[in-house]
Amino acid sequence: MDRFDFTAHSSSPYNSEMASVHRHLTEMGRLVLQQVDDALRALLEGDLSVVRSVLEREDRVDTLEKIVDEGCASVLARRQPAATDLRLLIAASKCVANLERVGDEAVKVAVIARELIEAGAPGVDAGLAEAGAEVSRLLATALSALSAFDAERAVEVIVDGGYRESLSTLAVRQIPKLDAIPHLLNITWALRSLERIGDHAHNIAEQVIYLVTGRDVRHLSVESIAGVVRP
Amino acid sequence: MDRFDFTAHSSSPYNSEMASVHRHLTEMGRLVLQQVDDALRALLEGDLSVVRSVLEREDRVDTLEKIVDEGCASVLARRQPAATDLRLLIAASKCVANLERVGDEAVKVAVIARELIEAGAPGVDAGLAEAGAEVSRLLATALSALSAFDAERAVEVIVDGGYRESLSTLAVRQIPKLDAIPHLLNITWALRSLERIGDHAHNIAEQVIYLVTGRDVRHLSVESIAGVVRP
Repeated sequence: MDRFDFTAHSSSPYNSEMASVHRHLTEMGRLVLQQVDDALRALLEGDLSVVRSVLEREDRVDTLEKIVDEGCASVLARRQPAATDLRLLIAASKCVANLERVGDEAVKVAVIARELIEAGAPGVDAGLAEAGAEVSRLLATALSALSAFDAERAVEVIVDGGYRESLSTLAVRQIPKLDAIPHLLNITWALRSLERIGDHAHNIAEQVIYLVTGRDVRHLSVESIAGVVRP
Repeated sequence: MDRFDFTAHSSSPYNSEMASVHRHLTEMGRLVLQQVDDALRALLEGDLSVVRSVLEREDRVDTLEKIVDEGCASVLARRQPAATDLRLLIAASKCVANLERVGDEAVKVAVIARELIEAGAPGVDAGLAEAGAEVSRLLATALSALSAFDAERAVEVIVDGGYRESLSTLAVRQIPKLDAIPHLLNITWALRSLERIGDHAHNIAEQVIYLVTGRDVRHLSVESIAGVVRP
């Protein structure tokens, strides 16, 4: 499936309800990615105004989750969707839960950034910038796969598990910095949040593959998943 | 709604498909709760054989997630479920995602327990036993509300947010223990895992309220949620 056809049904309200679910899901993805990028910027550049923007946008993320879930429930109740429509609704419902948690993690990182800024903590580990960029890129790829119904791109996300290793190397590197324990805890928590964001990107990618191929690839090996998409 | 009526449909396969979703969801909940309790036991009693049991059961948790989701998709595709049936399927699909992550957190706690045992670390903070028991009880209440379709019991879980405070007090209490940094990191990570488990219990409780009342109470205040269930 290259694209989803939102004009496939003879009922035009049905078409527009499906398109609305997809549009709000895409909007939520864009917003959450911005939250992650801004939280990282707050952490790396020590900018309190960016922290505030992240906190202010949290409500909109939560509202979009509700809108998408309501849209899904409404189509399921009234339209008897089948095949790809049904899978889009199921995948959308799973993905918004992941996106909402990515948004939560971004807020946690922003709050950690604020604590570090207010404590006058020294700049964070240079490796953190790199790991943060890696996780953000992974999420962007998963979201673009979701928006374009592109299973091949989703596989790229699943194959790319390097973020876990970068993040645990970074966490271990913090340990000898005994002279700044409160900051150390904050930074390792930020690393854990980044790890979660990567995991959610992975989950979203799995839902894209389900949506496009109809196959549930959760908990399969990377090789088996690649085989499902490129037989 | 006191109970769900799995004999409501004239089609007996439909009834048994709905009952099967509920049975597997309940089995998954029971198993995941056991994983949490065993992971805590491994952490508190330093028992490596319990760690192994937790790791061995992880596959079964993942399999149950797939079974429930397949069951939901199959009923949605073939039975045009409405009203409470539809809400049960939507809530089941959301809850298995939470349960799978609770299972993941239990595995993380078990792995941390193994590292502490192998490093010959001293016994963990006594407060941890209490906080662990609190989170486990919260999850048990959420699961029993889910199994019995009991929105009042779900509200108890949502009102009971004390675990967050206990856990952050505990985390702060670890900070001065400078002489055991690697263990300190492990223990604060275990605390974070417990916090997540509590959060997932909260999410499951919200799904129970949605299932029983049809109202999406996510991101509402505790008072508003109580008002939805006891108007």
